[in-house]
Formats: sequence, structure tokens, C-alpha cells
Amino acid sequence: MSKQQFGVVGMAVMGKNLALNIESRGYSVALYNRTGSKTEEVVAEHPDRNLKATFSIEEFVDTIEKPRRIMLMVKAGPATDATIQSLLPHLDRGDILIDGGNTFFKDTIRRNEELANSGINFIGTGVSGGEKGALEGPSMMPGGQKEAYDLVAPIFEQIAAKAEDGEPCVTYIGANGAGHYVKMVHNGIEYGDMQLIAESYDLMQRLLGLSVEEMADVFSEWNKGELDSYLIEITADILTRKDDEGTDAPIVDVIKDAAGNKGTGKWTSQSALDLGVPLPLITESVFARFISAYKEERVAASKILSGPAPYNYEGDKEELIEKIREALYFSKIMSYAQGFSELRAASKEFDWDLPFGEIAKIWRAGCIIRARFLQKITDAYEKDSDLANLMLDEYFKEITEKYQQAVREVVAIAVQAGVPVPTFSSAITYYDSYRAERLPANLVQAQRDYFGAHTYERTDKEGIYHYSWYDEE
Amino acid sequence: MSKQQFGVVGMAVMGKNLALNIESRGYSVALYNRTGSKTEEVVAEHPDRNLKATFSIEEFVDTIEKPRRIMLMVKAGPATDATIQSLLPHLDRGDILIDGGNTFFKDTIRRNEELANSGINFIGTGVSGGEKGALEGPSMMPGGQKEAYDLVAPIFEQIAAKAEDGEPCVTYIGANGAGHYVKMVHNGIEYGDMQLIAESYDLMQRLLGLSVEEMADVFSEWNKGELDSYLIEITADILTRKDDEGTDAPIVDVIKDAAGNKGTGKWTSQSALDLGVPLPLITESVFARFISAYKEERVAASKILSGPAPYNYEGDKEELIEKIREALYFSKIMSYAQGFSELRAASKEFDWDLPFGEIAKIWRAGCIIRARFLQKITDAYEKDSDLANLMLDEYFKEITEKYQQAVREVVAIAVQAGVPVPTFSSAITYYDSYRAERLPANLVQAQRDYFGAHTYERTDKEGIYHYSWYDEE
Repeated sequence: MSKQQFGVVGMAVMGKNLALNIESRGYSVALYNRTGSKTEEVVAEHPDRNLKATFSIEEFVDTIEKPRRIMLMVKAGPATDATIQSLLPHLDRGDILIDGGNTFFKDTIRRNEELANSGINFIGTGVSGGEKGALEGPSMMPGGQKEAYDLVAPIFEQIAAKAEDGEPCVTYIGANGAGHYVKMVHNGIEYGDMQLIAESYDLMQRLLGLSVEEMADVFSEWNKGELDSYLIEITADILTRKDDEGTDAPIVDVIKDAAGNKGTGKWTSQSALDLGVPLPLITESVFARFISAYKEERVAASKILSGPAPYNYEGDKEELIEKIREALYFSKIMSYAQGFSELRAASKEFDWDLPFGEIAKIWRAGCIIRARFLQKITDAYEKDSDLANLMLDEYFKEITEKYQQAVREVVAIAVQAGVPVPTFSSAITYYDSYRAERLPANLVQAQRDYFGAHTYERTDKEGIYHYSWYDEE
Repeated sequence: MSKQQFGVVGMAVMGKNLALNIESRGYSVALYNRTGSKTEEVVAEHPDRNLKATFSIEEFVDTIEKPRRIMLMVKAGPATDATIQSLLPHLDRGDILIDGGNTFFKDTIRRNEELANSGINFIGTGVSGGEKGALEGPSMMPGGQKEAYDLVAPIFEQIAAKAEDGEPCVTYIGANGAGHYVKMVHNGIEYGDMQLIAESYDLMQRLLGLSVEEMADVFSEWNKGELDSYLIEITADILTRKDDEGTDAPIVDVIKDAAGNKGTGKWTSQSALDLGVPLPLITESVFARFISAYKEERVAASKILSGPAPYNYEGDKEELIEKIREALYFSKIMSYAQGFSELRAASKEFDWDLPFGEIAKIWRAGCIIRARFLQKITDAYEKDSDLANLMLDEYFKEITEKYQQAVREVVAIAVQAGVPVPTFSSAITYYDSYRAERLPANLVQAQRDYFGAHTYERTDKEGIYHYSWYDEE
């Protein structure tokens, strides 16, 4: 009996869809799920496909050709470790395990090292695009042993989404946890993009009184230009949808304004804090979700805390809409500049040699943050692979120069009108901080030296100094 | 031979000063340091004091009366574990180890549990006030076994700083890591306070062209009013000091604008992210330090990235100075509101039952964030120990109502003038978010449900919903 070419553990929707995607490219796939009925179900639903249901780990492993290529699509965390432990006794040296979950990168680094000691290759790969992406073509961010990835690459390149130029949205990211790290930052960027869109929507609604339908048209228009992206596209679509529970309202108007999160945005911020990288925009977007979740407290506070004097925008509506668009694009650039700064720092810290231009390239299709402007990031890194900050690239520099006035005006208006714009305001603050030859941190250093003898450097000569603050007393 | 009443391990400046402080209250103190010469030195410097130098762990432990009270003043981290391990074989059940370092609270939770298994009590205490505070009276935040703390309390109450009303700045905080947690948040708040002062200074300098001497007078004036605090006081003092290295410049002008950090601010933000608590102001102040440290990148960027059109403030100088003062006080309130929200969430998460009012009370003297306004926080929690957010207290509500216009104007001016105000702008954003009955997070939830089937709640009825976004296609 001939062996299967690939194995997938975990028959929840992501695992099932990936298996179907792989099979559709001409590969035979062995399936395993802890609950066997689920595996039977998948095969029964697709009787004409080259899928083999297995009902024990031994049977599953035994049915796959060597070196085995096995993808784990189980819940990130302890379930991943448990699955690995159950597989391990049955594997042979040179086999390749691939974790396609939303795994914390440090877990991937640990597992890669532990398994390497047993001669097993371990690839941790980001998979973005949701259920639909898994089935039709996700964006994939694999990290681990390069020689092991080379044995999986032909399959991954076939199942991945294809960019407009036909290139597959997958590339080797780097050693051990590099793939999951990049996926984490992808998700952090996604948080930022979503919050920026939400603030734009809030401003149009609260400052200009635009209806949901009118806003759908605005986003639809925006999607034809430089903001062209999946998230703007679905926003326009969402705003056209009516409630499906009997009211006549637009669906957004009946959805509760309390955003959930699955933790990847939080990790992105926590890692930036560990690396010493300023990541204010994404972090503000995480905090914005948190504060939205304080729904009951907010409703109570809204009755107690007052706002500013009523603000009437007297200017031209269309002009302000255009300024919001410019502010959004400007802020998006700041967000990606911060995200890529974080990747740059992580690349050094973990010795990954991350391919920044390639990373932007594989985000052009399949994933949630897919957008036309990612090509500009690729272009920037192709010109200068060691670019210190995206803002310094000619294209982005021109945009920020052109649009900074708009974001300044929009933030000034919003703050005076009492509409919260945490990510817009952190975007302009980041820009003004980064381009500041001198920041007031000299005073902070003086204070630290005063109360804690933490020392300071000088502007005019090298060395570490401490001032005798108390001697004069 | 009579035994010593207290023991201190670690004769660096903090340990030495705490030992001297304790001895000065009439206690005999045994000293130990890994390098014995240091211990000899301390005793030789103070021949008339009741200090006993010891030169082995056995001798040290043996010389202290039971139940032993031993304070560890060693570098936080592995050194603390190593010291505990070396002491452990010599200790008896009921002895009390006290860690006075800047220890990460999860380490304290772990050590408390491990030692409890051997019958040893473990107190982790925050000690704030620097070298001077350790000697003359620090603010102390002890956590651990309550019955063990009761045996240390008489000493701690004598060595702690005294508030104006004579109350010692120490109180039992809660079980295991509670004391170190509160010290961590204290330090995070300190980061926020310092950054707020730095932004005020930057605005007066860049918008109004005030000289260093003029700003010294402004801060000195501010320190007479509701902003009365140690950090404002030392800022005024710092601004009067001249360089001590031969130039004639004010010392702040020769200090490099690259702020360092020791990690406690970062921890405060990371914990808030874990707890789901919005903590934008302190986090922005951490990021502001990070971006200041990118000094070379900033200098390069300042020559490439343009700013806004030159901004001329045409209003009255004194008026803007007053608005900056109001913005500073408003923002300080937002920062403490966030910090105490974090304490509230941590108290629930770790089952600490934190005494919020008492915590503000013991910060009134000795520590770096000591300030007149802390009494207002104590008052607020004495009125309502379960206050959801400080802003909702009558006093703070009135201040925020009165000063919100000022912070709106200051932020609007700063953003348009190109002066970065990350903490001022996050303060007003937090205020406007918290008082928003409705935030645009409904759109974020719609997007999450669209691309990831993450579901949402509704405004009009209970339950978890998912919209069939794709069925119409």
C-alpha cells in the first residue's frame, strides 16, 4: 500500500481546510483527530478526495512517507505540547513537524530546540487568512530549519495565496521562532489597521453626521486609491449590511461596542517593551480594545463626566473627509514603520536575519492586512535592506510630508471635539518624536540622576557623568 | 553573648543605609556581604553603632535571635535566589526573610510559595526613596504572610518616612507578591510623572521660548499649589543648576536627551496588557524613553523629515503657562486613575484585597512620587473603597471638568506646532474614551466576525451572534 505524502493533525475548521487545500494540489493526505468521528466526517464529506482517515497516532504516523511531513493544526498552548509528545515516540530522525497554530514565538523556539535534540525538524508557521484563506490560499510565514523547510516548500508554494504578479505568499522567514514572531507582528499591525479605520468611522459619524450608507460609499471610494486593502474593502461591505435579527438597522448599529481579542496584539506590544522598541500605535489599539470592553463602566461614566463645549465643524464636509483619509494613510505608515522597527530589533536579538522586503511581499495576498501599499514597503527594502525606519524611504517620506498637515488638523479637531483618537494622535506624536533632534529626555535623565544617581551622558563629550546634586546644600 | 535583633544581607549602598536606619532606632543588626571586606568597611566607618559584622552565612544566621528577621538587599534576580538557597539550610521554621530589592512580583510569588513549603516566611517589600530614603526614611510596601509582617511591623514603622500627620509610610499590602506589585506600579507612575514634566518643559521651551531660569521659576511656583510634589520640586532645583564640567551652561542643556530605564516601567505596562487594563499614559512614557534612546537615528531623521509650517503662538504667555499647568495636573490624574485601575484588576486577579487608600497614604512621604494630591486619592477611597475609577470621585471629577479645556488646547497647539506630547495626548484620549457611552469598537467587532468568525454581542439583547457575511455572495 502506498504511503500518504502529507499528514494533518487536528480536524477543526483550519486543519480541515488546509488539508483540503493541500489535497487539491495533488497530494495524498493522512488525517488524524483526537476524536475519530470528526476525521470520519471530513472524509465522508469529501469521498472523492485523496484523504486517508486514521484513528490512532501509530496508524497516522505509519501511513505517511518518510521523511514525514506532518502539520499540527491544534489549539496553541498545552495541546500543541501534548500532541508533539504523543507523536514523538513514533517519529524517525529527519521527520518534519509543522505547527500552523497561533503559537507564542518563545514556545516555538523552545520546541524547535527540544525536538532538534531528537533529530526531529520543527517548523513554526504563521497562517493568515482565516478559514477561507486556509482553504483557498493563506499567507504563510514559516520559520525553523532551512533544510527542512526546503522539503515542504513545494507544497507551501502551491497552497499559498498568489499575489497579483503570481508570486506565492510564502517565504522562508528564519530559524526557530521567526515565522511565529512575524505572524505575531502581522496580527499587531492588524489591530492597528482596524483601530485606525474605527477612528475614521467615528470621526465621520460624530463630527460630520454621516450616515452608515454614506460611510460605506466613502470607504468604497477610499478602497480605489492608495488605501486599497482587504480591511477597507470589508469595512465598506459591512456598512452596507442590514441586521439579520429582525430590526431594520444597519448591522453595525446593533453590534455592541466591546471588542474582544485573542492575545496576539498584546504579545506584540509586550515584545516591543522587552526589545526597547517604541510601538505606541499598535499598543494604543490594544488598549482601545480593552477600554471598549469596559462597557458598563463607560456607560456609567458617560452620565458623570462632562465633555467639551459642543463643537461645530464649520468647514467643508468633503474636505474633512479627505483629511481623514490622509490622516489614516499617514497613521498606517507610522504603524508599519513601528512594526518593521520591531522586526528589525527582533531580528538582531534572536539572530534571525529577517527578510523585511520578502515579508511585506508575502502579505500582499491571502492575509488580513493585505494591501496595495505593501508593495511600497518591499520596494523600500529592496532599495535598502538595512533601512533604519520606513519613514526615511523616499516614497514614505513624500507621503508623510504631504499628509502631516491633515493628521495634525484632524487630531486637533478631534481632541477639541471630545472624540477619542488614540491611534491618530499617537501616530503624529511618533512622527514628531522620531524627527526631533532634541527631546526633553535630558530633563528625565537629570531627574533620574538626582533621585537615584543613575548617571547621564553629555552632549559635548564622551563618558558617564554624575552631578553632585546634594553637595551644595 | 546576646543575639542580634535583625540581619541585613548585602552591603551595597541601599543595604548599608537601611541597616544604619534600623540600628538608629535602637536595634542591634547583624551584617553580611559576600565580599567580607565590604562588611568590615561598613562597621569600621561606624565604630560606635550597634552593628555586628559576620563573615559566613552560618555565622550570620547563628548570630540573629529567633524567629530571625533577615532582610536581603541584593541585586534582584538570580542573586536573590542564590542568597536564599545559601541561607535556607541554616534557617528554622518561622524565620522571616524579607526581600527589599526591586524584584519582579512573579518571582516574589514563586519564592513565597517555595519557602512556605519549608516553613519559612517570605516578605517582598518595595522600598522607595533612593539612597537617602533608605537612610532617613523610605516609603515601604511589604507583602507576604500577614503574621510574619506583624513581627516586622514595629521596626518598619520606625524606619519608614513619616507623612505630615506623623503616620509612617508603610502598611501591610497583601499576600505574597502584593508589595512588589505595588512598588512596580509606583515606578510606572513615576515614569508617567517624569514624562509629563518633561513635556511641560518642552512646550515652555519650544512654544514660548522660556529660558531655563524662567522655567525654574515656573516649576517653583507650581510646587506651591496643587502640583506640590517631590518631582516638581527637584525639577525646579535642577533647572537652577549650572554645569560642573567647566561650561557656563545650565546642566540640563549639556545632558544628553537619551533616557535610560531599569525595566520597572516596562513591567507595569506588560502587566496591564496581561490584565486587560488600559494603561496608555504610563506606556507612552516608557515608549518616550525608548524613542529618546534612538538618539543617532533621530538626529539623522531630523535632517530628512520635515515638520509643520512654523507655528507662532500669538496668545498671552502667562495664559499658556497656566494652561500647561492645568494640562499637567489633568494628565497626572489620568495617569493615577490608570495606575489604580491596574491595581484594582491585579487585586482581583491575584486575590490580594489591596488597600487602595492606604497605598496612596504611604506614598505621601519618602518615595519618589510623593505629592500633596495623594491625600485626595486616600480621601476618595475612604469614601468609596470600591471606586471603579478615580475620575468618578467628586474632587477629581471637578478638576477634570475644570481643566479639560486646557489640555485640549495644549494638545491641539502642540500637535500643530510639531512638539511631541505623547502623554498629554494619551491623557485626553483616555478621558474621552472612558466617558464615551459608545466607542467605534462595534466596527472592530464586525470586522473580527467578518474575517475570523469571532462572533459579537448585540446592544438590544443578550447572546452571542455571528453574521452570515458570505451567504449573500
